[in-house]
Amino acid sequence: MHIFDAAIALGPLGEGRFAGKTSPAYANMAGPYGGITAAVLLNAVMIDPRRMGDPVAETVNYCGALADGPFEIATTLVRGGKYTQHWSLTLTQDGQIRSTASVVCGARGAVFTHTESGMPEAPPPEAVAAIPVPGPLKWLDAYDLRYVGGAPQFAAKPFASLLDSRSLLWVADRPARPLDFPALASIADAFLPRIVKARGLMVPLGTVSLTTYFHATAPEIARLGAGPVLGVAQAKRMHANFFDQHMELWSRDGQLLATGAQVAWYRE
Amino acid sequence: MHIFDAAIALGPLGEGRFAGKTSPAYANMAGPYGGITAAVLLNAVMIDPRRMGDPVAETVNYCGALADGPFEIATTLVRGGKYTQHWSLTLTQDGQIRSTASVVCGARGAVFTHTESGMPEAPPPEAVAAIPVPGPLKWLDAYDLRYVGGAPQFAAKPFASLLDSRSLLWVADRPARPLDFPALASIADAFLPRIVKARGLMVPLGTVSLTTYFHATAPEIARLGAGPVLGVAQAKRMHANFFDQHMELWSRDGQLLATGAQVAWYRE
Repeated sequence: MHIFDAAIALGPLGEGRFAGKTSPAYANMAGPYGGITAAVLLNAVMIDPRRMGDPVAETVNYCGALADGPFEIATTLVRGGKYTQHWSLTLTQDGQIRSTASVVCGARGAVFTHTESGMPEAPPPEAVAAIPVPGPLKWLDAYDLRYVGGAPQFAAKPFASLLDSRSLLWVADRPARPLDFPALASIADAFLPRIVKARGLMVPLGTVSLTTYFHATAPEIARLGAGPVLGVAQAKRMHANFFDQHMELWSRDGQLLATGAQVAWYRE
Repeated sequence: MHIFDAAIALGPLGEGRFAGKTSPAYANMAGPYGGITAAVLLNAVMIDPRRMGDPVAETVNYCGALADGPFEIATTLVRGGKYTQHWSLTLTQDGQIRSTASVVCGARGAVFTHTESGMPEAPPPEAVAAIPVPGPLKWLDAYDLRYVGGAPQFAAKPFASLLDSRSLLWVADRPARPLDFPALASIADAFLPRIVKARGLMVPLGTVSLTTYFHATAPEIARLGAGPVLGVAQAKRMHANFFDQHMELWSRDGQLLATGAQVAWYRE
């Protein structure tokens, strides 16, 4: 079984209740990488027999640190209509809620379509070197990351003058795995914190809320195979202990697959 | 009492329970304007005696149409720590959940600060004409909207070729009212749907999920008085019955007050 599928695997505990466990392959500095938590929460909706349509939006709130070990996810179908389904989720460990999430699913059809954003220019992924696997952040080993521009650098002291926070890179699961909604939900968080990119300095930080909008439909994603996807991320403001970052994920053939944003806490 | 304060007023029903009612001043095509729902949900957290810190993030999911009349909001403090508080909310009417929301509050301090985005160029609000108040959408009368560029046009048939979806405008409450977090939460939704701006055609649509990140602190907002704020909004993709729109709110003196995004359903 692929490490990603093992990490998002859930066992049934009754209607709307699922048992999961953290995966060492996606370990972050403390607890699991936020993207894998977004993926396993989304997977609970994907495998819930009440689900109709494709996921359109997911918001994950990271309430407390998740320890290595088992956890439980509860899904509540808040409202279901002809066009949309609204889900609320909790991820609980040792009786405490560690994450909450909302997921909107929708019926998708062949209506007016238009992509207004332009795909960032980038050489093909084969022409870009993958970054060597760094030591402490285990989850980075679960991704093939090929920076076209803006690779974060971790300096011993802050840059003399700030850089912009933009990074542009090809991303794929490592080892390769066919793309699907949980994979995109995880990749949406695969950008290192923008405040690190801008300052060149690692500071205590953590994502508090992450939102992803899925633009591609299930068959459109299935056609992409294992990717990679082109990701771009940038911050707009870092102020008073919180910063935002905004991202886009593109297919090789120029489809905007997902857009989203997150807000993270930082200490200094 | 200002129409906005009347619209977000809540009466106590016990810990974490509040009684509200819809306001005719913020009526939309069917039910209330989405921004006022975001504002009243945020207000429930603002007045909850358990709140600590300023709101940093709010996500509102519009699950079902709200009818004119009374409703109830329930606030749950999911987790509270030294740096952040996580809240989950429901807005219920006739025993059915019509909206869910999550709010993150945070302790804000004087640490590293940097605004990476540039403020869009715009003439001062005094040099821009306010749009005349249109008929059917009552809530538009509750805002002073001065389009610098990209005012939506409602044509009898679609534009021969699409326009871009960007609008840039000065926004203030009408009548004037000092800005605060609920006011910004509402203004974050004051952009007419981007698909209308691009196509020139009104189609059946509705916001399904809206996320706003607040960058300014309470004292920074208080210093702005009644504004106005400069808002910019643009869509990235409209596809298969859903489109996104991304927005920024700026103070006159160049502070990025809030960033955010929403995803909306459309039928054709």
